[in-house]
Amino acid sequence: MKLISYRSARQPGVGVMVDQSRFISLRRVLPDLPPSLKEIIGQSSTLKRIADAIKGNDGDLKLEQVELDPVIPDPHATWALALNFQAHIEETGLTTSPDYPQIFQRMPISVVGHGQALWCPDPAVAKTFDYEGELAVVIGIPGRHIPAARALSHVAGYACYNEGSVREFQGHNRQFGLGKNFERSGSFGPWLMTPDEFGDPKTHRVITRLNGVEKQNESLAKMLFSVEQVIHYLSTGYTLQTGDVIVMGTPGALKKPSDYVPGPYDSPRIPGRTRMKPGDVCEVELTGYGILSNPIVADPMPLQG
Amino acid sequence: MKLISYRSARQPGVGVMVDQSRFISLRRVLPDLPPSLKEIIGQSSTLKRIADAIKGNDGDLKLEQVELDPVIPDPHATWALALNFQAHIEETGLTTSPDYPQIFQRMPISVVGHGQALWCPDPAVAKTFDYEGELAVVIGIPGRHIPAARALSHVAGYACYNEGSVREFQGHNRQFGLGKNFERSGSFGPWLMTPDEFGDPKTHRVITRLNGVEKQNESLAKMLFSVEQVIHYLSTGYTLQTGDVIVMGTPGALKKPSDYVPGPYDSPRIPGRTRMKPGDVCEVELTGYGILSNPIVADPMPLQG
Repeated sequence: MKLISYRSARQPGVGVMVDQSRFISLRRVLPDLPPSLKEIIGQSSTLKRIADAIKGNDGDLKLEQVELDPVIPDPHATWALALNFQAHIEETGLTTSPDYPQIFQRMPISVVGHGQALWCPDPAVAKTFDYEGELAVVIGIPGRHIPAARALSHVAGYACYNEGSVREFQGHNRQFGLGKNFERSGSFGPWLMTPDEFGDPKTHRVITRLNGVEKQNESLAKMLFSVEQVIHYLSTGYTLQTGDVIVMGTPGALKKPSDYVPGPYDSPRIPGRTRMKPGDVCEVELTGYGILSNPIVADPMPLQG
Repeated sequence: MKLISYRSARQPGVGVMVDQSRFISLRRVLPDLPPSLKEIIGQSSTLKRIADAIKGNDGDLKLEQVELDPVIPDPHATWALALNFQAHIEETGLTTSPDYPQIFQRMPISVVGHGQALWCPDPAVAKTFDYEGELAVVIGIPGRHIPAARALSHVAGYACYNEGSVREFQGHNRQFGLGKNFERSGSFGPWLMTPDEFGDPKTHRVITRLNGVEKQNESLAKMLFSVEQVIHYLSTGYTLQTGDVIVMGTPGALKKPSDYVPGPYDSPRIPGRTRMKPGDVCEVELTGYGILSNPIVADPMPLQG
């Protein structure tokens, strides 16, 4: 199944895709369910009820009729990995532990859904707004001290993530902090694909395109820490919660000539990279899953609060 | 006012303290208000209604009759500062930017309320569970691009925070990640003291005691980045949300002889520090505010999930 979180007339809802553009609203077929994907994915019995209820039903709504939220709009925690691909380690010139994943957090206000606008910081605030195409993993069944061999049984599904980053702020001090948390700087969607459809994460590729030009294209088999290892690691310290999100890190840039156009934004330091700026469209694709696409607009908030 | 978040028979409630031990439940005097402090503090008109409604009322419940939650049990974001006191920078031997605060995040499951047990990791998982006594600042009115001169008008109140840390995990890689986010490793409370009662943060001292022995005692005037500066900094990147928490960093240790007793936990690297272990009681006091106290117990979760 492909499950979405959406809003229609400001009311939240959960839907099940029937093809690439139409979906069934659970409000119609199972009106007793809560309108929150986080509350639905914690119980495998609920997912079975949904699968039964949608059989033989046509989609009643189209994606273009609603606003898509992040797959999980209000996760208890979102963990993101830094430097989880060798090519990205090399292109940044940074070092990271080979023994433990490098992990930081994002807060909900920093993330929007498929089709929603990302906010490019005003150049007076920051000139370095970067895409990072990544695999997102959503936890279903809670767990503590989860062995790697059983880790994938705690996964409710997978999605694309654009882990948008403001490099100057990321580099202000040792912890990434605000640089990974600018308002509406990242995106998460379009849908949650359940593991029975998604299969083994390592068999997919992640592809990032800016204005249609391919910028990243890498096999998820190249991740240094696997989904299973990261779930095991995090569950050493706390009980993973239903709806928790793990974002698995971004690959290196394709080695292409720079297409930097002089303007108010800094030129990228890494060959093959390009900053995001207002007017751009950024896509993150997972092969066999679909495409997360977002237009970029100028941050509309006045600089004087 | 001193406002608490509590649970009674598993139902959440908000209360107003009338002395150090008794409080008025808002469910009784203002039953139309939501049972969530986060939903109450965003509107100054609601706080005025509360102040009027409690006049002439006696406390109807005692703290010991309920379970205290963290002051804000489910903040949208909790930001914590690293290395915000010169003595703590020197005792750790670490470096930090003099120009920008060093900031990371905590998730809700890592924090409990006053009187609730902190979980000391099993020594097979980690041997370095440390207290950090700190000032917590809670945002009331949302804001973006807030000038430092107006920053304190966005503060709903203040509280004590024990920013409990698991040092091995904090040191696993460059980002603190899980080391600052072990389950029930920190605490936040007992109450939110509104700014009219708390006054200027810099006039208070933060004091940490382990089993009654003073371990930290420092003026908040020694903070390198002030509350105003941090609010201004964060609001550069996102719209601060009602209930967001900012934890202002821990001071250095009092230089006392070590009272380390050999056992399954590592000896502290910093003179005057002591690890927390099961059976201990840790207190964080803000002068003129009150005391946050928590017993420490062994993490009860079995090591095989």
